[in-house]
Amino acid sequence: MTMFSRFTPLLDQLPATVPFVGPEAIERNRGLAVKARIGANESGFGPAPSVIRAIADAAADTWKYADPENFELKQALAAHLGCRPENLAIGEGIDSLLGHIARMVIEPGTPVVTSLGAYPTFNFHVVGHGGRLVTTPYVNDREDLDGLLDLVRRDNAPLVYFANPDNPMGSWWDADSVVAFARALPASCLLILDEAYCETAPARTTPPVDALLDLPNVMRTRTFSKAYGLAGARVGYVIAAEGNAKAFDKIRHHFGMARVSVAAALAALKDQAYLAEAIAAIGRSREKIAAIAAANGLAALPSATNFVAVDCGRDGTYARAIVDGLMEHGVFIRMPGVAPLNRCIRISAGRPEDMALLEEALPQVLKRLA
Amino acid sequence: MTMFSRFTPLLDQLPATVPFVGPEAIERNRGLAVKARIGANESGFGPAPSVIRAIADAAADTWKYADPENFELKQALAAHLGCRPENLAIGEGIDSLLGHIARMVIEPGTPVVTSLGAYPTFNFHVVGHGGRLVTTPYVNDREDLDGLLDLVRRDNAPLVYFANPDNPMGSWWDADSVVAFARALPASCLLILDEAYCETAPARTTPPVDALLDLPNVMRTRTFSKAYGLAGARVGYVIAAEGNAKAFDKIRHHFGMARVSVAAALAALKDQAYLAEAIAAIGRSREKIAAIAAANGLAALPSATNFVAVDCGRDGTYARAIVDGLMEHGVFIRMPGVAPLNRCIRISAGRPEDMALLEEALPQVLKRLA
Repeated sequence: MTMFSRFTPLLDQLPATVPFVGPEAIERNRGLAVKARIGANESGFGPAPSVIRAIADAAADTWKYADPENFELKQALAAHLGCRPENLAIGEGIDSLLGHIARMVIEPGTPVVTSLGAYPTFNFHVVGHGGRLVTTPYVNDREDLDGLLDLVRRDNAPLVYFANPDNPMGSWWDADSVVAFARALPASCLLILDEAYCETAPARTTPPVDALLDLPNVMRTRTFSKAYGLAGARVGYVIAAEGNAKAFDKIRHHFGMARVSVAAALAALKDQAYLAEAIAAIGRSREKIAAIAAANGLAALPSATNFVAVDCGRDGTYARAIVDGLMEHGVFIRMPGVAPLNRCIRISAGRPEDMALLEEALPQVLKRLA
Repeated sequence: MTMFSRFTPLLDQLPATVPFVGPEAIERNRGLAVKARIGANESGFGPAPSVIRAIADAAADTWKYADPENFELKQALAAHLGCRPENLAIGEGIDSLLGHIARMVIEPGTPVVTSLGAYPTFNFHVVGHGGRLVTTPYVNDREDLDGLLDLVRRDNAPLVYFANPDNPMGSWWDADSVVAFARALPASCLLILDEAYCETAPARTTPPVDALLDLPNVMRTRTFSKAYGLAGARVGYVIAAEGNAKAFDKIRHHFGMARVSVAAALAALKDQAYLAEAIAAIGRSREKIAAIAAANGLAALPSATNFVAVDCGRDGTYARAIVDGLMEHGVFIRMPGVAPLNRCIRISAGRPEDMALLEEALPQVLKRLA
């Protein structure tokens, strides 16, 4: 394959990767149809009907760029969160914001601390900027706050990633522990506190917004992709000290937001009644997944997210066989990438019809593997 | 303002900027309402009715991420363009793709060649990656191909930017000259050939797709933002040698595309009859802008784009006064940022009602300035 001869040495050494293979690619590559799309932690309950209407209403205005200052969305988010618009940065999903933060902090060789098996897309950005990943294992399927702190201190790392609740395990820490962790970090280390799944977490999991706003070394990332059911819209945001939020203006894509996506996010924020319904439906689906797991002799882990990690009791090869086997029945799920987490499969909350397909397929897959 | 203390030295030295202030910000800052939105080279003719329907139809599916491989859109674009899907990279508008290319080539201090007064967002990305801008002036309001080539050779630059047709002047080179320029470049220099406005250019302005595909040092950027009327959707693409297209997978945001935007782009590609109508309407509007200019003693420059640069015959201060004065009448336009180009104002093609507002306001503004 011909390629330009003078890309940066860093680019030359990077692998071409897709952090997550999409269900569409699996369908194409394996000649299978996805019937239950419960693998990417999307929300099959969908966005609110009011949001779908807002997208349709905004469609004719798609000839206009979105407001590069995201003024209206920042105002609405600030009112909803109880912070100032100046504490917010908006981006095309958390993935994009993680990329920006990586670029803001990482130079070639910079040590970056995360948990072994945590969010691969963050790792993709770290490596993509020449950073050096330093990891500590999960303890009892939970990210290890003491372990993260020790690594930060040992390597004098300027960046640490911690998701609460966690993906891929669904586990969580209480808000007090999170605040204590943030305050124990040296000021020279920026904490990315990824709260993509905060809406579905139990009370007192997510620290109040103002509990960390005084810390210039904390950035909290959130999204409309999960409980709000807007994964395809690409709307994420950062809550941070004003100076940090403003720093994104140095490198962000000012015209990166899709206009209908902004309209969708605004409508979603307004429809908190629907959000409450969706969260309740996700909770019921988590229970159903746990029941299906138990009926098949598998152990669902407690979850604060819109998915459930199910311990299949053996190794990653076995879990992979279950994932692949379910896909043959049209049930798309995923699994953690690293031992010992990869003894689990990861099933997203879904509609009753998705759960029915899972319930039908799982025993058949397990029987064939027995 | 509190800010994290350990951002990279590069980030610390960057200014916080917005390459273009949006019309919404102007409305807020000046307390004025935009009535004729003809400043951002959007298309007031809008996307096709079939595209608006496609967005509405896709709205309910916004709970799903878009296919990270962009398989369907690449297939459709390849069929439309007459290349292979492997020759394409998709991104959230050309701005985003320019950022990726900058990152792929630029290290601190890397010289990057462009024209003095050319696309500011490209410059934003160059500076944002620590590159050093090296510029040559426009000659007769056209980018100077010989001048660009000389600078590339002089500084052994690995990257050169050239837009054909040009923004902000609307000028263009014929396809043969473009091909000759690309082939004259050293293989060690990557040409970004920005063809954002190719749909509205005269015949034989844009080289055939296959005319440059054998060159591993050429990347052509295109967009659905201009003639297709989908600026708010954020869909751009790169046409390049296979190895170059694949290189984006090393750093791009795999889940960056909004799902309804992909649906919009697919529908837009299918509706070439509407595109032809839009191009004709843009052509009529260009003529109308020229006529309005002439009626006011100003000289419209020839344009191959969806906007017209109008020479106001004096300096940048005078042109700025016209831009600001028109905004007081609700007519939003922009102007080039650098002398001598900034003797001009830049007016986007618009609907008859937009042209009527311009026609009414311009003589009043000029009279007050006289």
